[in-house]
Amino acid sequence: MPIVRVTRRLHFSAGHRLHSPELSDKENREIYGLCSNPNGHGHNYGLEVTLKGEVDPRTGYVVDLKRVRETVEEVVLRDVDHANLNVDVPWLEGTIPTAENVAIAIWRRLEEVFPGGVLDRVVVSESERNYVEYRGE
Amino acid sequence: MPIVRVTRRLHFSAGHRLHSPELSDKENREIYGLCSNPNGHGHNYGLEVTLKGEVDPRTGYVVDLKRVRETVEEVVLRDVDHANLNVDVPWLEGTIPTAENVAIAIWRRLEEVFPGGVLDRVVVSESERNYVEYRGE
Amino acid sequence: MPIVRVTRRLHFSAGHRLHSPELSDKENREIYGLCSNPNGHGHNYGLEVTLKGEVDPRTGYVVDLKRVRETVEEVVLRDVDHANLNVDVPWLEGTIPTAENVAIAIWRRLEEVFPGGVLDRVVVSESERNYVEYRGE
Amino acid sequence: MPIVRVTRRLHFSAGHRLHSPELSDKENREIYGLCSNPNGHGHNYGLEVTLKGEVDPRTGYVVDLKRVRETVEEVVLRDVDHANLNVDVPWLEGTIPTAENVAIAIWRRLEEVFPGGVLDRVVVSESERNYVEYRGE
Amino acid sequence: MPIVRVTRRLHFSAGHRLHSPELSDKENREIYGLCSNPNGHGHNYGLEVTLKGEVDPRTGYVVDLKRVRETVEEVVLRDVDHANLNVDVPWLEGTIPTAENVAIAIWRRLEEVFPGGVLDRVVVSESERNYVEYRGE
Amino acid sequence: MPIVRVTRRLHFSAGHRLHSPELSDKENREIYGLCSNPNGHGHNYGLEVTLKGEVDPRTGYVVDLKRVRETVEEVVLRDVDHANLNVDVPWLEGTIPTAENVAIAIWRRLEEVFPGGVLDRVVVSESERNYVEYRGE
Repeated sequence: MPIVRVTRRLHFSAGHRLHSPELSDKENREIYGLCSNPNGHGHNYGLEVTLKGEVDPRTGYVVDLKRVRETVEEVVLRDVDHANLNVDVPWLEGTIPTAENVAIAIWRRLEEVFPGGVLDRVVVSESERNYVEYRGE
Repeated sequence: MPIVRVTRRLHFSAGHRLHSPELSDKENREIYGLCSNPNGHGHNYGLEVTLKGEVDPRTGYVVDLKRVRETVEEVVLRDVDHANLNVDVPWLEGTIPTAENVAIAIWRRLEEVFPGGVLDRVVVSESERNYVEYRGE
Repeated sequence: MPIVRVTRRLHFSAGHRLHSPELSDKENREIYGLCSNPNGHGHNYGLEVTLKGEVDPRTGYVVDLKRVRETVEEVVLRDVDHANLNVDVPWLEGTIPTAENVAIAIWRRLEEVFPGGVLDRVVVSESERNYVEYRGE
Repeated sequence: MPIVRVTRRLHFSAGHRLHSPELSDKENREIYGLCSNPNGHGHNYGLEVTLKGEVDPRTGYVVDLKRVRETVEEVVLRDVDHANLNVDVPWLEGTIPTAENVAIAIWRRLEEVFPGGVLDRVVVSESERNYVEYRGE
Repeated sequence: MPIVRVTRRLHFSAGHRLHSPELSDKENREIYGLCSNPNGHGHNYGLEVTLKGEVDPRTGYVVDLKRVRETVEEVVLRDVDHANLNVDVPWLEGTIPTAENVAIAIWRRLEEVFPGGVLDRVVVSESERNYVEYRGE
Repeated sequence: MPIVRVTRRLHFSAGHRLHSPELSDKENREIYGLCSNPNGHGHNYGLEVTLKGEVDPRTGYVVDLKRVRETVEEVVLRDVDHANLNVDVPWLEGTIPTAENVAIAIWRRLEEVFPGGVLDRVVVSESERNYVEYRGE
């Protein structure tokens, strides 16, 4: 059967602050600039989740994207939407919530619930000007 | 010569209904939800066609995208634009018109008219919330 | 208190066919072109609903947009989303489902549920290439 | 001379929390829902500033939009970008940072620096799903 | 009959240079900055044309937007698309091709071909960051 | 450490003309159509630069995208923004400024300043209808 990649786009609004406790204030300011402002700021995050697999001849679906949406809402969005990524999300604890780290953490959340080999790509954007992509490598 | 991928974005408006004659009404409703409503609905479909090849040093083109557009209009859009994908398109007959099946069918149409190895990717979206990608695998 | 306009954007996917029973087939074809194809086609419709009023000093809201969304979903989207505008929607019966007529009909639905003078504007688009705006004039 | 409206689109990323000290926790939760989460969240805010006036026959401009951008950056964006709207912005103190209140406050900032009658419209969006418009009424 | 505004969005790609022969080189540079570079630059221009009128009960249209598109293509786009606005367009001769002047000139072209009172608004954008609007005032 | 791709989106406005001195006027017109108009036209070009690498555990970044932006502005945008690609850009001399050739030339500029293996992808678009992608192959 042909192999197709299917992608669901989702969004969440969250606050964050880029600041490493292992760095001095001066280093934090140099590396993160305005992103290290003490009271934090926030974004409308874009999230793309891509799954890959054979098309089921019975349904014409690789996977029902409605279920994908429900799963991502349950294991990811419920925790991060309208939350503060630095303090409200157990599975981000101990990481600096850069887009890179958020994408990797979301991949790991999803990897536990989707069957092996199905998860293909997680893309996280903080604005229209940039995005990061993690493929599990 | 450097190898470049060139992509043309196109659009078409079509009606469809997701419903499998091999499934019971209850199964159809469970799998396809509102998408199986008897009188159908529709979308502005997005279509991306990517071709891949060496850049012709004489023209600076991999391929003239104007010709690509004309070809896709002739072998794909003329059939699906402002049509009902369940009943109006000969090359979709017998398939459930999910985005996955539409992408595969479009790939097969284009594979016949573009030289071997040139076609790289077909992307079909039904809305801004999702898209599927077929690479001929 | 300052007067502010607040707008909620929503979407629905629907099928339609432009065809007037009062016109001959030839006239229908001349006026509506591909849009009169017998088996219909469809769109991802964009809908903007604008309300206008004083900002409530207690809440900082003109109106809670979450309630606006719920209202529009209940009196409009529940009927038109994943439906066929020609046959499935009681409050469109007897009208040709052009964007103009859909916008006017949606205005009339909303006018019944929002307090007088609050509804300011209804915008309906069938694609990124066009939109129509009705202000109750 | 013809009168033209010119609009500059800008963006800023900010954190906020919707919470009124005059309301009980229960009321805050009822009115603002997830938006009242204690640790706040954030958005990529969109901002449109429209000025209106005669076209200067010497330059072909109503106003140099580069200057408009610089002015808005200086009196608005420098304060709100990568900031927390609840605690970091002097001219938002004492207001609940809803989109409505943010738009009115930005209008008042700009009204002080643009000549009388020139400022026509301020639009603030918190996401692609909604926006508010203030015309100084 | 209800009055509705209908808008068609179109695009054209053109080169231009902002430079006034009545100003010194220094003044040109001060006013137009990079936009006065001697060899010009260019944009993908966005154009919105809005017409206003009663909905024809026979067709459900204010006006057939296909005809609007054809008219705009004939009297505007044929001249400006893939052209240099400083030298190729007779009806822009003697004007500095700012977005303001282009919008006014397009309005005047369209005013000649659409019945009196129908033309409501012309919007021209040079990029996603700005747009100008002319309503014939 | 996990490997992540990070992408920065940028824009520039430039004029160009597609015309090969090695082709006859008739051939130029056949191949490039309106794009070979003598006085040129222009576009708002989109540019995506993707870098690939391990996430630095100390910063949570693959690379600071602010630095990426500054680098691309310095070695690419400063030369092409508000310029004429046929005559103003030393590193495009002798090439026909098709999107393909512009993408390859930008890759080569960036390859000199980013450490080996980091540069992953350059995407150039001339409009929303098309884009080209070069991966250094």
